[in-house]
Parts: sequence; structure tokens; C-alpha cells
Amino acid sequence: MNPDIRKERENATFNTDALTHILDGSPEKTRRRREIETLVIKDPDFQHEDLNFMSRSERYDAAVKKSAQMILKMREYGIADPEEIYSYKNCVQRGRTEPLDLHLGMFLPTLLNQATPEQQDAFFTPAWNLKIIGTYAQTEMGHGTHIRGLETTATYDPSTQEFVLNSPTVTSIKWWPGGLGKTSNHAVVLAQLHTQGNCHGLHAFLVPIRDMSNHQPLPGVVVGDIGPKFGFDEVDNGFLKLENVRIPRDYMLMKYAKVEPDGTYRKPPSDKLTYGTMVFIRSMIVGESARALSKACTIAIRYSAVRHQSELRAGEPEPQILDYQTQQHKLFPLLATAYAFHFLGQFMSQTYHRITGDINQGDFSELPELHALSAGLKAFTTWAANGGIEVCRMACGGHGYSRCSSLPDIYVTFTPTCTYEGENTVMMLQTARYLVKSYTQASKGQKVSGMVSYLNELQQRIQAQPVSSRPTVVDINDLTSLVEAYKLRAARLVELAAKNLQAELQRRLSKEDAWNQTSIDLVRASHAHCHYVVVKMFVAKLGEVADVGVHSVLSTLALLYALDGIAQHTGDFLLAGLLSMPQVSQISQRTKELLAQLRTNAVALVDAFDYRDEMLNSSLGRYDGNVYEHMFEWAKKSPLNRTEVHESYYKYLKPLQSKL
Amino acid sequence: MNPDIRKERENATFNTDALTHILDGSPEKTRRRREIETLVIKDPDFQHEDLNFMSRSERYDAAVKKSAQMILKMREYGIADPEEIYSYKNCVQRGRTEPLDLHLGMFLPTLLNQATPEQQDAFFTPAWNLKIIGTYAQTEMGHGTHIRGLETTATYDPSTQEFVLNSPTVTSIKWWPGGLGKTSNHAVVLAQLHTQGNCHGLHAFLVPIRDMSNHQPLPGVVVGDIGPKFGFDEVDNGFLKLENVRIPRDYMLMKYAKVEPDGTYRKPPSDKLTYGTMVFIRSMIVGESARALSKACTIAIRYSAVRHQSELRAGEPEPQILDYQTQQHKLFPLLATAYAFHFLGQFMSQTYHRITGDINQGDFSELPELHALSAGLKAFTTWAANGGIEVCRMACGGHGYSRCSSLPDIYVTFTPTCTYEGENTVMMLQTARYLVKSYTQASKGQKVSGMVSYLNELQQRIQAQPVSSRPTVVDINDLTSLVEAYKLRAARLVELAAKNLQAELQRRLSKEDAWNQTSIDLVRASHAHCHYVVVKMFVAKLGEVADVGVHSVLSTLALLYALDGIAQHTGDFLLAGLLSMPQVSQISQRTKELLAQLRTNAVALVDAFDYRDEMLNSSLGRYDGNVYEHMFEWAKKSPLNRTEVHESYYKYLKPLQSKL
Repeated sequence: MNPDIRKERENATFNTDALTHILDGSPEKTRRRREIETLVIKDPDFQHEDLNFMSRSERYDAAVKKSAQMILKMREYGIADPEEIYSYKNCVQRGRTEPLDLHLGMFLPTLLNQATPEQQDAFFTPAWNLKIIGTYAQTEMGHGTHIRGLETTATYDPSTQEFVLNSPTVTSIKWWPGGLGKTSNHAVVLAQLHTQGNCHGLHAFLVPIRDMSNHQPLPGVVVGDIGPKFGFDEVDNGFLKLENVRIPRDYMLMKYAKVEPDGTYRKPPSDKLTYGTMVFIRSMIVGESARALSKACTIAIRYSAVRHQSELRAGEPEPQILDYQTQQHKLFPLLATAYAFHFLGQFMSQTYHRITGDINQGDFSELPELHALSAGLKAFTTWAANGGIEVCRMACGGHGYSRCSSLPDIYVTFTPTCTYEGENTVMMLQTARYLVKSYTQASKGQKVSGMVSYLNELQQRIQAQPVSSRPTVVDINDLTSLVEAYKLRAARLVELAAKNLQAELQRRLSKEDAWNQTSIDLVRASHAHCHYVVVKMFVAKLGEVADVGVHSVLSTLALLYALDGIAQHTGDFLLAGLLSMPQVSQISQRTKELLAQLRTNAVALVDAFDYRDEMLNSSLGRYDGNVYEHMFEWAKKSPLNRTEVHESYYKYLKPLQSKL
Repeated sequence: MNPDIRKERENATFNTDALTHILDGSPEKTRRRREIETLVIKDPDFQHEDLNFMSRSERYDAAVKKSAQMILKMREYGIADPEEIYSYKNCVQRGRTEPLDLHLGMFLPTLLNQATPEQQDAFFTPAWNLKIIGTYAQTEMGHGTHIRGLETTATYDPSTQEFVLNSPTVTSIKWWPGGLGKTSNHAVVLAQLHTQGNCHGLHAFLVPIRDMSNHQPLPGVVVGDIGPKFGFDEVDNGFLKLENVRIPRDYMLMKYAKVEPDGTYRKPPSDKLTYGTMVFIRSMIVGESARALSKACTIAIRYSAVRHQSELRAGEPEPQILDYQTQQHKLFPLLATAYAFHFLGQFMSQTYHRITGDINQGDFSELPELHALSAGLKAFTTWAANGGIEVCRMACGGHGYSRCSSLPDIYVTFTPTCTYEGENTVMMLQTARYLVKSYTQASKGQKVSGMVSYLNELQQRIQAQPVSSRPTVVDINDLTSLVEAYKLRAARLVELAAKNLQAELQRRLSKEDAWNQTSIDLVRASHAHCHYVVVKMFVAKLGEVADVGVHSVLSTLALLYALDGIAQHTGDFLLAGLLSMPQVSQISQRTKELLAQLRTNAVALVDAFDYRDEMLNSSLGRYDGNVYEHMFEWAKKSPLNRTEVHESYYKYLKPLQSKL
């Protein structure tokens, strides 16, 4: 092991394993996760050349092979618990998305949730056994987040009792669904249902797209891969153009809405039935943000402990770059953020399960708040992690730009979360809608509950007083006081947005235009609300931590997270009268102290995330710190090194030399 | 042409061509640039398949082919003026870096600047005619920005009159030089010179690395490609390990330092001789920041004019996404930034040439400031553009993630500028060193000049007064007043950093530790100084613009740039007493008005950058706005679509189906 990184571990003031157990949920969960990881990592069927050395077609090929193996093995080993499936799959795929993901994660669940019992009898077993390989085709080339705009049509023809599916325009071509291009032979297609001369809006249809015997596209089906992307090289995100494709009436998924043989349409009992899935996926993304950022932090912090550069003191050896205050200032707030998001992810997961329980008991009361919270926190955490990964990459200097660092991969794999499952700005505005509604209720004296309950206190707390006469509430060393400050900042910005919205309405703008004209303020308000929730849940988590060493280091991280957030939004806190001018420089000084304090534990804090080398796949982030030897070995395997002289020499350089 | 984008152009309030001429420098320069572009774009030798569809080896191959063609053609056409070479090369390479770039841009100039006349006679002609293909090998695996740390050795052996070159450790292996892996047969190697038992520091040696007859690596030379990266797929960035490689004495570049036949070392007359090149390259990068960001803005703004999404008013058609305030708030400040950086790039280029003239006259007085300025502005502009490109990409929703948008390419090609030619944080600290030095001089009553001359006024202007009694100087509608505000903010932050540094010294820290403990503040001070320079030069440029329509729209952009910067650093301006609390909400209101005002001219403002479709290579950014048709055509060419059924179906999916 590299002596620098060994020393870092020896100096740590807390037990790394104890923290890993907290992150996993319990020692038992850590044990089981590690067991599954070992199962996968040692499995010769999952070994393959580094994906970075392959062409896209080879990467797709390798991924299909692995997915096929994985399905066989999970059934062989009887891995069926959702958490264990997640662990196993994540380990096989090393956090990447693969061609069969939508079949497993969307197509099968959609059949379970939206097909009639008869349809399930007909389709589920072949789908479970991959005779039917399916995807979920919603997004169109011209239509994303706003699903009412989708153009694909399914027109009922009572004479043959069939639906006729069409892509009437270029913009209506289905675009982006994973596994659609080459892998799937069926798709759940979301289309506007037309029957008896009326359009009844979006419904789901099971559409065969490739021949089940030879995988050739069926007549009327134009299907293919949408081409290379920033990442997701293993996935055949696809397009689908339907030209008078006919499917039997009972290929419409009719658990809720129905079309009778004569074409009579029967409405579904409720239109909020898919609400839960959306909330679930967005809540899960919060955890993904934590994972992606914590991987990037692991790589950057371990590398910073090994890398020596420049000189602090003339004539002395080059110091570890982790000793530079600027490097600490880049990385430690991100490390704190990774922890904050991890605990937030746990909270979201628990909340989701609790509320799902309530819903099963017929209590829907908390669903709107969870919906609003999951939308905003999805946006808040993915934006922060997205930017943070790149800071980590650039903090590794040139080597961060090499694919051997794995940081480019982490980024390109993660960054779509800012867009999919609801574009982030749209998500922030959904949360804002809930905040403004809650504000309006509270200002009318109705009591609001949950995370927005601070709006009840608004009348008493945030009066328009001159700053000088307002008491400064913040003790910058006290986490409870800082949570309070974030709360009051959120309250002020929600109020400001609501008042600006009101002012636009008074300028006689329509409701919609007024909303648009206030949307910058609304996004800011959502952002501040989410920030408050993150700080609050981080601090709440500390109350559950019994281990003294771990509690101490996590408290330092929480304090850094809170103070760094204030430093980045000083204006907000000053304007809300929550901070005096001298406190701003105190925060700056205190931040420096916290950075120095965390220096000792930085490597142990990333060790506690417990990513094995095989999972990180990063020369820079190796546990043993033997960065350079490994980079050199990796580079030698580069495809350009397969021959000493590249063919282009004979084709172009030698002829050029003879011409000049 | 798409009717939406046509309408945008019809509504523009200024003459696009007039603005293009300002950006190019003159109507004549625009004409000549377009002429060269046409020459390249129509040249059948420069046509090739979309690079996105190729493997890395194919991309490298295509790039070598193109570079070879380009060299022949430039000589054929007699393109020799540096600006025209730049134009032609940029157009052939579409902004990418290619394998022969270091030969042309570093190796040949190094021979010219550092070789003796005899060496030039021996080496320059073969190098000019590409018999010798060279690269510049400085960076090592373990050593980057801090060049004194380099480990490669060149030990003089007087018995044979040779230097013996060695890579004594893994960390000393040369790593990253472009064209080193497969293309070059020579390298200028920077190595620690040892002779007569003494080490004389870093010197440049011309080292043959491949046989000139067959391109095989020479004995003792281990050379190859460092493997795939985030981008730069066309370049064979390489490694070089030297094992007792012997070169004749006169292969050391000896224009300045010399080693006599007996091993006697002769010092160079000055050690600042490469100062100018560094300053020149950093100044050029400012212009690169403008170009990369303006390309990204062009794509995102044109696409936002074509893309319709969601609903503002129930029942009405989906609006152009450019109508959303949040979209404007993402893109228009970046558009303003692109213009600001463009004018800054012009200023840097002019300043560089002016000062080079002075230096040739023996006047070095302005060099330190230019050095400091180019370091900080390189960092300031590359960071801003780097983040801005990604904002543009994500503002295009899912389609921004497709390689057909070109946005991923722009990002991965640009992002290394944050690291190379001096890591950005290190650059900011270099500028800070100059600022602190100037502050110290000014506070002793010595007059400092140039961009830091505001430090002279510091004593009078920024007294520690309570905020309430200080006059608020800013008129938020007046550009001159805003420049003043940026200036005073910079002054305050320079003073703060200098005082914090002083305080650390008084705590008896060593000079170096005190510097490190203040480095967060020092970077902030540099950032504020650079921000001031950018605003100042943008406003200064307005004074040169005679065209009324162009002047008006550029003034709006400048105002948006200045106000948006304040909004992002509200705390700084409040703490400096430059802004009252009510002004903060006025700025927010005014920003919204400016966004609405710029909405009309947004497309025309990106049209004025005058990037041809062939240069942008983006389906989303097409001039005609026919985005979706083009995306569909592009996708059909994806390599995965070469067969209807991918081979993985036969290899894995069909067998899997039979096993389940």
C-alpha cells in the first residue's frame, strides 16, 4: 500500500466500519451487500475487457451478454428481494444502465400494474421468460416532460376490433426509450386513444415491434438506435415510427380504462394511479445523487492524498495536494454534501414507505407533500451532485480527464438525472406550486403541516422590520440554530415569490403569465426550501448516531455543509436579517478551521462509503493508492497500442514525407 | 426554413452582419474568414463520416489523414499569415485538437526559439517537411503545473560526448504530450541536466524516439498512447519512458544554456525567456472561452426558438421554450458572457501585441501585469465557459445529451483548458500574488498602474465605516457606475485577503503556511479582480460601436452581464456597502425586464457569431431550424443500425430465451 494513504488511515479518529454500517442501515446489511459483491466480482462470467477500450457496438454486445447472464444467475441463486436485486444488479453493471433495464424496471411492472388478469395470463409469463422483451415508449422526438403533448395515435377500428397505431409527424416518432433500438421485440406505447370520433387522451398499448421468431422489425414498424450519446454507450436508446400498425383490441392495457368491442370508451376510476411510481423513482434519484457524488469524492480525495505537487516551503518535498486549503475547499464541502444526500436518501426512502403504508390504509393526506418534496429534492440533489462530480474531476488535474480515472464515466452516466424523470427546472416549479399554495393557506390562517409548517409562523416571525432592529438569530457554531436560519431564509424567499406573483397578478397579467414572470423567484424559493430540508435531515440524523467518534466527525461535516451553504448564499441570509456583517467573516474563518479539522479524517470518510476497487474502476481512486503503476498498466492495454506502428503511418505520414 | 426561427430573424432590431464585422474586427476580415471557410467546406478531401460513428482508432486515422492533407494544401495555397493559418486550421479541424498540432504549434516554434543556428540548419528543414515529426514532452505522470518537480534526467557523458536520458521512476514517465503516442518520431524532452556531478535544472533536449525509416520505437524507448480520455479522441496523447537513451551532445537545444564538450555548463543569460509564450497562450485561451461558449449558446438558443414544450395557457399550443423566463435566465446571461469574453479576448490580443512591441523596444514594465492578468483571466473565463456549456446542454433537455447536438463534444474538447497551460486555481493564486504585491506597494504610498490602479484609491475610498453612513454609489442602470461598483468590490476583497494574510503572519505562521491558510480569500480576490476587468472591457468596447442598433443591443447585454454578476455575488456587494437592500430587489426586477428585452434579439445575437452549420455540426443548432428531420437522418446512420438485427441477438438473447 502507498505509505501516504496508509498514514491517512492510521490517523483517522473514528471507526470506519461503524460509519459504513450507518450508511448501509445495519451491520447485517453491510455484511450481505459485501457478500453479494464478492459473488459478482469473483464470477468469471462477469469479467470482460475494460469498456473504455471497446467500440460502442462491442459495448452494447458485452452489456447484452452480461444482462443475459445476470438474469439466469439471479434466478439460479434465488435473489428475489428488491433490495438484493438492486445490490446484485448494481454490482454487475457497476452503476451503468444496460439494454434490459427497461424490460425489468418498467415493462414488467407496467404489465403487473396496468394489464387485466387475462392480459397478465397471456403476456406476463412470456415476458418473465424473455420471449417477450419489452420497453416503455413514452417520450417522442418533439415531446418530453409535458406528456399531454404526445402525438402518437391509436385509433380504434371496430370493423376488425383492432387499434391502428400511427406516428403522424416527425416530432411524434418515439425517441429515447432504452432497449428500444435493437433489444426489444415489444413496446408499451403511450398514445392518444381515438374511438368513435373522440380523443380520450393518453393510454398504454402493447405493441409487437419485432418478429418473435427472427427479431426482424414487423411491417409498418421503423425502429432503430438513436445514435451515440454523451454516455449510456451500452444502451440502445431507440426510435420507433409506427405506420398503420394494427394490434388486437385486447393489446390495450385495460386494467383501468377500457374500449368495448363496439368502440365504446370506459373511463378509468382515477387518473392519479401512476402518481406513486413517479414519486418513488424521484425519491430513489436522491440516493443516486449521493452515490454518484460519493464515488467521485472517493476518487478525488484518495488521489489527493497520494499526489504530491508544487511546494509549500521552498526546498522541502512536494506536499500532498490534500494539504492545500484550496483543494480542501473544493472537496470537503462536496464530501459533506455526499453525506447529507445519503442521509436524505434514507429519509426519502423511509418516508415513501411510510406514506405508501398510509395510502394502503386509505390515507392520502401526505401524498401531495411527498410529491412536492420528491420533485424539488430530485432537482436539488442532482444539480448539486452533477456540478460536484466535475469539481472532483478537475481537482484531479489532467489525470481526471483520462478515462482511467472513471470520473468522466461517473459524470456522463449521472448527468441525465438532471433531465429525465422530470426536467429539473420543471421539478423546482412543481415544488414551488406546492409552496405557494401552502403559503396562501397559511396566510389565511389555515394550518399547514409537514416540512412547510414553518409557513404557519410566518406572520409572527418575518415582519418587515429594518435590519438593524431585528435580532440576529444565528449562532454559527450551533446546528439547531443553523437549521432555524435555513428555515427562515426559505420562509422569506417563499414569501417573496408569493408576493411577486401577487404583484404580477395585480398588473392584470393572466395567472399563467404571472406565474411565468415570477418563475425565477419561484425556483429560488424551491431551492431554499430544499436546502433547508437537506440541512434539517442531516442534523436530525446526528441524533441517531450513538458512536462517539462517528458522531463527532459527522457533526463537523454537517457544520461545514451548513456554513458553506450560507457562504454561497450570503446575500439571502443578510437580506433576511439572519446574519450580521461581522458574522460573515466569522463563517469564513470557521470554515477554514473545519477544513483543517476534516483533513485528518478525509480518507477514512471516503473509505466508509466502502466502494471496492472493482466497483470504482478508477486508477486514481484505488484503495491501495498505487495510482501511477496502475495507470501505466492500463494505458498499455489501449487499443492504439495493439501495434507499435499505427496503420495511418503507412497510409498518410510516409506518403506525406515523400511529397514535401 | 422553420417558420419559428424565420420569425425570430424578422423581428431582430439590429443588423446581424454589422455585429459580425465587429466580432471579426472588420468587414474585410469577415469576408476573408468566410472565403477560407468556403474553401475548406467545399474541399472533397476534408469530407468524412461523422466522427461520432467511428472507433477511436478510426478517429485517429481520419485526423492524421486530414492533418496531412491540410499541410499540403496550406503550402499549395500559400496560406502563411498566422491569423489565416489559424482560420484555415480551425475550419479543417472544426475546433478539435489533432495529432500534428504539437508539431506545428510547439515543436517547430521551440526549434526556432531555442536551437542554435547550426541546430536549425540540421533540424528545421526536415521538421518543416515532416521527415522529423516532433512533440513537446514536458509533463510527467507524477508532475504537472510545478515544473521544477520533473524527474527525467539527462546526464552528460564526456567520454562519448553524449547525454544519457532516463526515466528513473514510474512517476517520471512523460505523460500527456499530444502526438507523442503514435505520430511523432522525435520529441523535445524537458529533463534535469546533470553534468560534472551537478544538477543544473530543467533543459530541453531533442530526442529521436522512432526510427525515421520505419517508425519503430528506438532501443531504450518505451512509447505509446495513454488510452482513451473524456474527449480528444483524435489525439494520441502519449507516454514516453527513456531507458539509457543516448543522444549526441549537440541534441541539447543550446541557444541559451550550453554544455561544452568537456561537460562544462554555461548558464543562460536570463531565465525568463519563455515567459512570453506562456502569456500568449493564456491570452489566446480567453478567446477560446468566448468561442466555445458562443457555440454552445448558438445551439441552445436556436433550439429553444424551435422547440415547443408544455403549456403556458391551458388549451393554447405549446409555446417556444425560449418564452419561459427560466430558460431566458439560463441562456441570456451566458450569451452576454460569450460577448463579454469575446471583447475581452480582443483586448488581450491587442494588449499582448502592444506589450510585445514594447518589449522589443526594451521596455518590460508592463509584462508583470500582463502575466498576472492573463493567468487570472484564463482561469476566470475557462471556468465560466466550462460551466456555461453544460448549462446550455442541459437547457436542451434530453436531446442535448445526444452526440447529434454537438454539445457533449464542445464540452469535452473545451474542459481541459481549465487544467492545461496552468491549473486554474494555481493561476488565480498567481494573479493574487500580483494583487497582494500591488496592494502592499499602494498601501506604502507607491503608485501602482494599469488595471490595479484602483488600489491607489483604497486609502480614501474604502474606510471601515458603518454601512448606514456610507453613501450607496451604484446606479443600477448606469454601466459606468456598475464598473465602479465592481472595482470597489475587487478593492475590498483584495484588501481583505491582504489583511487576512497579514493576520496569519502575525500568528507566527511561516510565509508559505500563511499564504496557504489565506488561499481561499486570495482566489476570491483574484476572481473579483478579473470580474471587474471583464465588465470594464465590455463597457469600454461599447464606446467603439458606432452602429446605433448594435450599440443598443450590446448595451443591454452588458447591463445584463453586470447585474447578473451582482445577483450571483450579492453578499460581496452588500458587505462592501455598494448596494442597499432595496436595490437587490430592483436588480432582480430589472434583470427580468432585460431578459424580456433580449428575447426579441436572442436568435439574431447568436446568428452574429456566424458559425456555419458545417462548423457547429449540430442537429439542434442548425441555421434553418429543421432540427427533428435532421436528427432522424443522423440517427439512421448510427453504426448500430447497419444491420436490422444486432449479432448479440443470436449470441445471447435467443439462447437465453431457450434456457428460461
